[in-house]
Amino acid sequence: MSSPTRIRNKGRVADPVLVVGSVAYDSIITPHDQGDRILGGSASYACLAASYFAPPRIVGVVGHDFRDRDRRKLAKRGIDLEGLLTDPSGKTFSWRGRYHENYNRRDTEDLQLNVFERFKPRLSEAHRATPFVMLGNIRPDLQLGVLDQLTAPRFVLADTIDIWIETQRDKLAEVMRRADLLVINDTESAKLTGAPNVIVAGRMLRQHGCRTVIIKKGEHGAVLFHEEGLFALPAYPVTELRDPTGAGDSFAGALLGYLASAGATDFAALKQAMVYGTAVASLTVEAFSTDRLAKAGCREIRARRKELLKLIKA
Amino acid sequence: MSSPTRIRNKGRVADPVLVVGSVAYDSIITPHDQGDRILGGSASYACLAASYFAPPRIVGVVGHDFRDRDRRKLAKRGIDLEGLLTDPSGKTFSWRGRYHENYNRRDTEDLQLNVFERFKPRLSEAHRATPFVMLGNIRPDLQLGVLDQLTAPRFVLADTIDIWIETQRDKLAEVMRRADLLVINDTESAKLTGAPNVIVAGRMLRQHGCRTVIIKKGEHGAVLFHEEGLFALPAYPVTELRDPTGAGDSFAGALLGYLASAGATDFAALKQAMVYGTAVASLTVEAFSTDRLAKAGCREIRARRKELLKLIKA
Repeated sequence: MSSPTRIRNKGRVADPVLVVGSVAYDSIITPHDQGDRILGGSASYACLAASYFAPPRIVGVVGHDFRDRDRRKLAKRGIDLEGLLTDPSGKTFSWRGRYHENYNRRDTEDLQLNVFERFKPRLSEAHRATPFVMLGNIRPDLQLGVLDQLTAPRFVLADTIDIWIETQRDKLAEVMRRADLLVINDTESAKLTGAPNVIVAGRMLRQHGCRTVIIKKGEHGAVLFHEEGLFALPAYPVTELRDPTGAGDSFAGALLGYLASAGATDFAALKQAMVYGTAVASLTVEAFSTDRLAKAGCREIRARRKELLKLIKA
Repeated sequence: MSSPTRIRNKGRVADPVLVVGSVAYDSIITPHDQGDRILGGSASYACLAASYFAPPRIVGVVGHDFRDRDRRKLAKRGIDLEGLLTDPSGKTFSWRGRYHENYNRRDTEDLQLNVFERFKPRLSEAHRATPFVMLGNIRPDLQLGVLDQLTAPRFVLADTIDIWIETQRDKLAEVMRRADLLVINDTESAKLTGAPNVIVAGRMLRQHGCRTVIIKKGEHGAVLFHEEGLFALPAYPVTELRDPTGAGDSFAGALLGYLASAGATDFAALKQAMVYGTAVASLTVEAFSTDRLAKAGCREIRARRKELLKLIKA
């Protein structure tokens, strides 16, 4: 198999990226379309997105129903599948969701954890030494378990979802303190802090022990809260929105992949990483599942990055 | 009276700015506070905002109840009040509105057009020759009447509101074609075009004959659609939101004032004008009525502009 194309950063060989998260079959209904049992999950999106910058290592679990063609889809982009366990005793995590008019609200209509319910990430010796790590939106106690196994973390990105804010707030607070970067959306930041204002919420999260925070606002872009200052980036001007699922995970995966390729994690690198993350996320939402994301070319990503930089040039 | 301070643009003497719109008494209820019969109206906000860059000329009408101290508030910022007529037969236009939690929705609880109902702008000889003109959100047929009176327009900015989109669509379309720049919010652009996606809506408006369009998205900033490209600007990171009323008019007034001070209306000038407009609008929302806006200093506006440029620097 030929190795996948990557965006090289000044000729540097990218560090590997470890992504722990869900691999799922999604059934998605949008106002205009639908997709049944299509490849999804935070780790799938994040690894595919990261693969344009660095070699990703996926850590997750699937059931006996996981399709070979989905495994190949991941492998084709150079994703190390050693950590993707198959649990033959059950089915793959599945989710059914419906997007409403304007795509800015979605409802979960069905959720079957299946084999994901017993998922407890155990990293191999090689995986433990990965320098760049993304803790996808799994249970905070499992995220802490992963953190404990890491032997040489250089930069850890943590994500979460509403349910853990409600049910595991203390564990989540510990994750937030130990991670280098928290990436969440505006609904989650409001729930975490009680502050509906994104600027207030981001500052509160830093005061409460998060080193660096990015709050995503969907079509309105994202804001970075860093000790050196704020950075606000609009979304890429998408006009063919088809399925927003996985946009956030693609953003985070590409962002981390870029940092691993740059070998830098400072304010300037984080800004560039956000621009790349935004460019990659814009591809994800233009198709169902990981279809567009898996087939995008480096040239396309670079072109969107360039367009985004032009869009914000004062 | 000492002349008001202005932000000088490369030592150039700013052209005058004519603003036609409402002057009103607002009663505003927010989740945390309220203000009764405070100075408001699109022309008041826009003229005060413009006054930091160029000499504004207000065109509007007030009733017998208009307070001297409000007249002085406008005069103090160097606003030419020759075109502010007093109709002794009735009261000043009044509006009562209530903002809901998070300030992103408001309801009109009472609206009394009063003398504004018979308002028909007639410009003096001097006013007709004003090069930079803002058509505030008055009835489109009246906006057209103003356009017909102008003898040397260099740049005309037009605003509108929902009700004219519903009741005077044809006249409004004519205003949009004849103006140089349409400034509206995302709800209005969706209503005008049927496209909830801001990027799609902005492009449609240009296709339908608007030369240049700015769509405002409140706390999420604004997007400029110009023949040379797009420009997306986030809002200034306001954390002390007190009353959003007048933010859009302040944005437009400062934007036009900046263009008049720069003597330029190209893509680059429009971008800079948006940055200043955003900086000035952020001051307006930090207090009720025009209080903060009328007292802001040039130094404060320049500082916010600088902070905004830092916020978007990739």
